[in-house]
Amino acid sequence: MGTYQPTARTSLRRYPKRGVFDKTEIQAILDEGFFCHVGFVADGQPFVIPTGYARSGDQLYLHGSAASRMLRIADGADLCVTVTLVDGLVLARSGFHHSMNYRSVMVLGTARLVTDEAEKIAALRAFTNHMVPERWEEVRPPTPRELKATTVLALPLDEVSAKVRTGGPIDDEEDYALPVWAGVVPLRAAAGEPEPDPRLKTNVPPFDVRRLGR
Amino acid sequence: MGTYQPTARTSLRRYPKRGVFDKTEIQAILDEGFFCHVGFVADGQPFVIPTGYARSGDQLYLHGSAASRMLRIADGADLCVTVTLVDGLVLARSGFHHSMNYRSVMVLGTARLVTDEAEKIAALRAFTNHMVPERWEEVRPPTPRELKATTVLALPLDEVSAKVRTGGPIDDEEDYALPVWAGVVPLRAAAGEPEPDPRLKTNVPPFDVRRLGR
Repeated sequence: MGTYQPTARTSLRRYPKRGVFDKTEIQAILDEGFFCHVGFVADGQPFVIPTGYARSGDQLYLHGSAASRMLRIADGADLCVTVTLVDGLVLARSGFHHSMNYRSVMVLGTARLVTDEAEKIAALRAFTNHMVPERWEEVRPPTPRELKATTVLALPLDEVSAKVRTGGPIDDEEDYALPVWAGVVPLRAAAGEPEPDPRLKTNVPPFDVRRLGR
Repeated sequence: MGTYQPTARTSLRRYPKRGVFDKTEIQAILDEGFFCHVGFVADGQPFVIPTGYARSGDQLYLHGSAASRMLRIADGADLCVTVTLVDGLVLARSGFHHSMNYRSVMVLGTARLVTDEAEKIAALRAFTNHMVPERWEEVRPPTPRELKATTVLALPLDEVSAKVRTGGPIDDEEDYALPVWAGVVPLRAAAGEPEPDPRLKTNVPPFDVRRLGR
């Protein structure tokens, strides 16, 4: 798969060891996450908006209502899309050395409006199946009106980097003698008991939460 | 507590019902979350960086190494800090009506470098205790060298809004007859089994994960 090429904007200065450019590792982070934060500039002011996304090959897709102000501004603009997975709290023996374990991908670039209908449908399928594998195959397909009402943007995975912290706390040597608990408390996005819609047909089998792999 | 004043930049246009300006509700979201995405502009390019934060009264604090490029750029610049809690996947009977339940707070403004030592220490205490309640009281306090090596920025909670989606899917009337599972799969940041540091003193009691309330 190879690596993404670091640029002046994606190179890490202080902790180069935390920088990741490996495509396989970066794509695994993007595929495990399911929402991103989109940064764009409007009238000089940065905005950071959470939204869903999907990856397909070397493209990251964003979507929303055709009336979405965010997508209208984002089309053709310089973007920064960041996906962050928080893996744990790192508790050290001093406040100073507390940290978090995380994997974060940053994508810089300019998004393109997806106008080709086949690509648009493929992207919508990728969104739905990114939430729940094979979900697209069991739900009602989109109507022409719905396709028209949906805007899809494609951001090329080109200027991409990841930052990853793993492992336990790194304490000052003299602090290891302190009688303070230190270590990592793992965190993950856990799925709870599915809550069926009150109007669910009685013959529909329950949702198997293992489909999410969470 | 009252409400934050909506501005042209924080008003919701398409889904005004999802907009929240109530201070109590917004502060509860900020206190439940523990990492944010900071948006800033450098050479016209937006950047979105994940980092920890803490709230104290009407101030949102960011911190990091004094060598942090992000904090140096953020000091005095126009920022957008966004905190997002994802509460669930909303599975509808059509791909089009799939959604997510979430609570997201957006703070716009300009950060101020915290130079007063008492305020700086109070902010560091807030960071640590935001990760784990009462953690600051059990760890080694900061040294003058550590205080100097840490930059703290304060962003006033002034131009603030939240966006909240709750509840089940809203399907097209004719789709309710479809034999497709629909409803909400709740998601939460769950803590796993704490992993003690290999150099932990043997007389230290285990970490009680219930302290996190997760």
